[in-house]
Amino acid sequence: MAGIKLLFCADLDPAEAATWRHHLAAALPEADWLDADAARAAPAAACAAVVANPRPGALAGLPGLGFVQSLWAGVDRLLADPTLPPDVPVARMVDPAMSAAMAETTLWAALSLHRGFFAYQRRQRERRWHVHAQRRADEIGVVVLGGGAMGQAAASRLVAQGYRVGVWSRSGARPPPAGAEGLAGDDGLARLLPRADVLVNLLPLTPATRGLLGARRLAALPPGAGLVNLGRGAHLVEADLLDALDRGTLGHAVLDVFETEPLPAGHPFWTHPRITVLPHAAALTDPRSAASVAAANLRAWHAGRPIEHLVDRARGY
Amino acid sequence: MAGIKLLFCADLDPAEAATWRHHLAAALPEADWLDADAARAAPAAACAAVVANPRPGALAGLPGLGFVQSLWAGVDRLLADPTLPPDVPVARMVDPAMSAAMAETTLWAALSLHRGFFAYQRRQRERRWHVHAQRRADEIGVVVLGGGAMGQAAASRLVAQGYRVGVWSRSGARPPPAGAEGLAGDDGLARLLPRADVLVNLLPLTPATRGLLGARRLAALPPGAGLVNLGRGAHLVEADLLDALDRGTLGHAVLDVFETEPLPAGHPFWTHPRITVLPHAAALTDPRSAASVAAANLRAWHAGRPIEHLVDRARGY
Repeated sequence: MAGIKLLFCADLDPAEAATWRHHLAAALPEADWLDADAARAAPAAACAAVVANPRPGALAGLPGLGFVQSLWAGVDRLLADPTLPPDVPVARMVDPAMSAAMAETTLWAALSLHRGFFAYQRRQRERRWHVHAQRRADEIGVVVLGGGAMGQAAASRLVAQGYRVGVWSRSGARPPPAGAEGLAGDDGLARLLPRADVLVNLLPLTPATRGLLGARRLAALPPGAGLVNLGRGAHLVEADLLDALDRGTLGHAVLDVFETEPLPAGHPFWTHPRITVLPHAAALTDPRSAASVAAANLRAWHAGRPIEHLVDRARGY
Repeated sequence: MAGIKLLFCADLDPAEAATWRHHLAAALPEADWLDADAARAAPAAACAAVVANPRPGALAGLPGLGFVQSLWAGVDRLLADPTLPPDVPVARMVDPAMSAAMAETTLWAALSLHRGFFAYQRRQRERRWHVHAQRRADEIGVVVLGGGAMGQAAASRLVAQGYRVGVWSRSGARPPPAGAEGLAGDDGLARLLPRADVLVNLLPLTPATRGLLGARRLAALPPGAGLVNLGRGAHLVEADLLDALDRGTLGHAVLDVFETEPLPAGHPFWTHPRITVLPHAAALTDPRSAASVAAANLRAWHAGRPIEHLVDRARGY
């Protein structure tokens, strides 16, 4: 039986790329790994590509390309490449280990904001011993934007901690986890924002969600609310965030993603006392588990079985 | 029917004392509140005292005193008062809302240490964008010292997040929550420490636990471990902690309690990059729920029914 012909296209540092190659080879011992030149030299041979942030154009000129499996959950950058063949199916990475990591970061941020631990860390720098009031979890509304695998995992853990949890998605296609309230559409968002003492963004970046978090929506949050952006930098209007923080209507922001990454050295977010900066590390894809997820999907494609987590190119995720 | 005669003895600021008086009066509308002078003027009348950090001597000279209900969970300071009548029963505060708050702080600290969020916050101050490796929760051992109500609540939530959880208590009297391993005694502690990527102290301060966290036990932790002291400052040998951090064997410490509180302005903990200082705020007693817990116990005492959470004066908690 012929092996699966696979191309690995990743814009990663060499050590990271080697780790991925190791885990992919272990998960797919039957695969023939091609480099891009070999794939272009034999254009008729059907092959699939396993990609992690490929450089624009990396998948051009491959008429035999039958399937693209992303190792990343977010595919906005991949889909923005105009040379990506329009009819080739693309699958996102949906890995329970990654959803768990995102849920951990969400829970850490929610606990930090609810209990004022960022404020205590600011006071430590001032050597100031001052206890603030403590609220119970059931007095805190946490709203998760995004009803996919990551939003659901995060919302479940927030419910288990006793928070009042709302889950918003554009379409409302999936029911929210038990104990959370699910709302959809513009009306649903308008109803949820005033209850969001903590607002967590886990949406995919699409034309419909770009700039979603701007002045009007930030102003709809309760006074002193916390914002947690774990989606994409372009969801947030950065100037509007600074304005809301500096006017005191918003209490604190935890940001993992930015318009420009790495965050430029002179960017005001680095030094803002009410912004916590993470270096796009809220949930790293874990090669150990993600390689298995990718392998299962690549075998399904090769055997002509249905592929999981196919991207809807029109919808953008 | 005669009301319960009660004395309220608290070393609190006036606003805080007023809040407590309000909630206690609402929870015990039948009580006659005495001040200390009135209680001393009618020594034969049976009365109980509701106390929050009373000044030493506050309960002296009250021959009618039949019961002391603490509003605080920790009674080490109360029991250290040599004028506390030796035969009067004393009850600790055990309030599910307080255990929940302690479990929240424990979970926040465990997530912060496991995922390296303190390290990311240090790097933010250096404007440094650097992603470190990410471990799964099931690769992290968290050991909770203390098998009481707070230790159990904290351990349950840690198990639910997927951590490998050990619970240690001196006596091993209570079984650990489902999914956690319970060990007791010096041998049990020696076995658990090398597995404690995160060590959380929730023990009461007694002669048997004073100085428990010294050089020898800190050295038994895995390299780079995190220490979370939410018990009492005197559990920890402060100089040994600084030594372990500065030699790099310990990774980070989260400290809520100190030998001297408030932490003195010149204390090295304030500015240590690997110490997070909280102002004894890991779990505040919530007057709304604690007043009800106290009221139920005071009514039981008045009616001659069994009192809950009686302190064993010999054991010290």
